[in-house]
Amino acid sequence: MNGGPALVSILRQGSYLIASIHTALDDSQLVRFQQDLINQIGRYRSRGVVIDVAALDVLDSFGSKTLRNVAEMARLRGAITVIVGIQPDVAFAMVELGMGTGSVHTALDLEEGLAYLNSHLASPAAPGVVGFQD
Amino acid sequence: MNGGPALVSILRQGSYLIASIHTALDDSQLVRFQQDLINQIGRYRSRGVVIDVAALDVLDSFGSKTLRNVAEMARLRGAITVIVGIQPDVAFAMVELGMGTGSVHTALDLEEGLAYLNSHLASPAAPGVVGFQD
Repeated sequence: MNGGPALVSILRQGSYLIASIHTALDDSQLVRFQQDLINQIGRYRSRGVVIDVAALDVLDSFGSKTLRNVAEMARLRGAITVIVGIQPDVAFAMVELGMGTGSVHTALDLEEGLAYLNSHLASPAAPGVVGFQD
Repeated sequence: MNGGPALVSILRQGSYLIASIHTALDDSQLVRFQQDLINQIGRYRSRGVVIDVAALDVLDSFGSKTLRNVAEMARLRGAITVIVGIQPDVAFAMVELGMGTGSVHTALDLEEGLAYLNSHLASPAAPGVVGFQD
């Protein structure tokens, strides 16, 4: 893997993290991705996470379980997760095989995912607005 | 089938898709309908889908499973689905035979279905609010 292209990129944008999976990951790579993401949520005090899977044309049961778990771990760390870019064929296979994303939020693409985060996070912690609104 | 009336129409209305099933579909036609609908959600960036089954006087177990699956696939692609127009006899048979629509939203008719979508989609992503806040 050394010297090859990055398999996953995790970019920080304000209080969001944008994680793009560029290629199909094997199980150990998925676990590594999960750990990296959860660590970065803490380091950057992120409030929202977008996981972009548009480059994936297959997603096996371990992969979809990992995405569910990442979303739940992120929630425990105080961040909302949106999974974006699930391809039609992948959606078809996930539903037929009964491996949905559970209650994880989904959106069509990165733009919609960020709009979702903006609308759900705007009031609780708008940038620069520290403290509680009441 | 060529030259006959369309079995299904999928109309785009703003950010919604309105799919009307005009006649009982066989299994392969249902699968085709499912694929068409999921593809159009991506093409038109639809946020909501109304599936109108008012013309159906029977709905077998494969049909109701397909409707459930369509709704879940649409969710994975970022759209909410409402099934409208389930006839009394069809509702009766579906419940008696234990083939409900699961957690899929239902409404009495197209008008109520659109009202449901409007109320659930108005705030999360108002049209024109795109981009990042920082």
